[in-house]
Amino acid sequence: MDLRNIRIVLVRPIYGGNLGAVCRAMKNMGLSNLALVAPSADLDFFEAHKYALHAQDVLDGRRQFATLAEAVADCALVAGTTARLGLYRSHARTPREWAPRLLEAAAGRPVAVVFGPEDDGLSNEELALCTQIVRIPSTHRYASINLAQAVMICAYELYVASGSFEPPRERYEDATLVMRERMLEKWRQMLWDIGFFDEVKADHMMMAVRRIFARGPLTEADANILMGVAQQAMWMAGQWRKATGANRPAGAEPRGGGGGDQ
Amino acid sequence: MDLRNIRIVLVRPIYGGNLGAVCRAMKNMGLSNLALVAPSADLDFFEAHKYALHAQDVLDGRRQFATLAEAVADCALVAGTTARLGLYRSHARTPREWAPRLLEAAAGRPVAVVFGPEDDGLSNEELALCTQIVRIPSTHRYASINLAQAVMICAYELYVASGSFEPPRERYEDATLVMRERMLEKWRQMLWDIGFFDEVKADHMMMAVRRIFARGPLTEADANILMGVAQQAMWMAGQWRKATGANRPAGAEPRGGGGGDQ
Repeated sequence: MDLRNIRIVLVRPIYGGNLGAVCRAMKNMGLSNLALVAPSADLDFFEAHKYALHAQDVLDGRRQFATLAEAVADCALVAGTTARLGLYRSHARTPREWAPRLLEAAAGRPVAVVFGPEDDGLSNEELALCTQIVRIPSTHRYASINLAQAVMICAYELYVASGSFEPPRERYEDATLVMRERMLEKWRQMLWDIGFFDEVKADHMMMAVRRIFARGPLTEADANILMGVAQQAMWMAGQWRKATGANRPAGAEPRGGGGGDQ
Repeated sequence: MDLRNIRIVLVRPIYGGNLGAVCRAMKNMGLSNLALVAPSADLDFFEAHKYALHAQDVLDGRRQFATLAEAVADCALVAGTTARLGLYRSHARTPREWAPRLLEAAAGRPVAVVFGPEDDGLSNEELALCTQIVRIPSTHRYASINLAQAVMICAYELYVASGSFEPPRERYEDATLVMRERMLEKWRQMLWDIGFFDEVKADHMMMAVRRIFARGPLTEADANILMGVAQQAMWMAGQWRKATGANRPAGAEPRGGGGGDQ
């Protein structure tokens, strides 16, 4: 999905470091459309450039406006962020709740996500221009989130909701039940061969072994490795039998902590 | 849910500003358990203190370890973050995917979320200690996320998944269908009284009006306000009728853009 219609709007930002970090967060999440409204006269653009790291293109592509109304004039939706509560903010929702609605609208026209100045947030007049109010989840004990962190959470939620991220996936498939059973059969034989259990305990112990390998996903690669382990241990047991002429370890008592299943 | 068992582990962190921003992000999201592994000798703790803002308690409560193995020795799960891909990272999942599993384990023992140094990330040896691999969604074009931003996204996902956040909710309930219909009936009467439509167009236009008020949620408070608007406009029309002796506006032609429904 094309995220060019998602405009990040910073109202009266003060710190260059934050502005730079905003640019970096935006670029991490595939955003590039940045608007500043009346940035502080003290805002250090040199510092912003430094903090933007490899996202100076976002910084350089910014547009600047005198008022919020001008910055969002062409937008279909305007989502204003706030950490405060109150009458004008009682219909706030989380970035995750708003993301699908914003992306839907962004298919047509630009939509804005608006962040207030570091010290004070958006004014009531500015919030009145917003069609959506966004409140980022945080503890009541300390709700004031750094500007660049707030932009990151919103950008991240929009990016994730856009479905643009292809999560890395295992190159191997989950093992089939047939593979899993073949592997467990080998393990049963191997555990017998090395004298881990006797005939009486075998079924009980194999249930515990099954449980261990069923706790999480088991890929084909995992199953192949586990079969190889069994194969090798069986070979070792065979070597031992050859060397000693024995049938299998006498007594069939587990060595070490093998009998610990409850 | 108690998040004290969620330990944020920074391995060989370099920049004090990042460390401070990590503390602030942790506190925003209800986390307080911070461990540093072999921080850089150049790390500026004075700067960290400054950037921690109102989260200096998190910074002051940190514990320090010589190796990752020591920092996570008592942990049930160890989730390592990485931006790189490769054989040892192919089973990575997103923070949102891992969060429920980490919280489940954290009900019993500590669990760690581990972040590598700013310049290089976690080594293969360190990743081998991790039971889970975490990859934060980002564009392939620029996957390198600032350390404090990466911590924020993971902390945010854990906090949201913990269900600790009580989203602010409207104080009014959605209007019932009965209220909604009563309001629409008043609007129909009002639109008639002010001459917005004639008898022929009334049903058609009311469908458009219904649609407008059905596009989003409509609370009881909204319905009451809209009924008040209708009531007041009907009063105005009554005053006009009294003053002029007329029945209702002649022609019943909409004024302005009222007829724009397609």
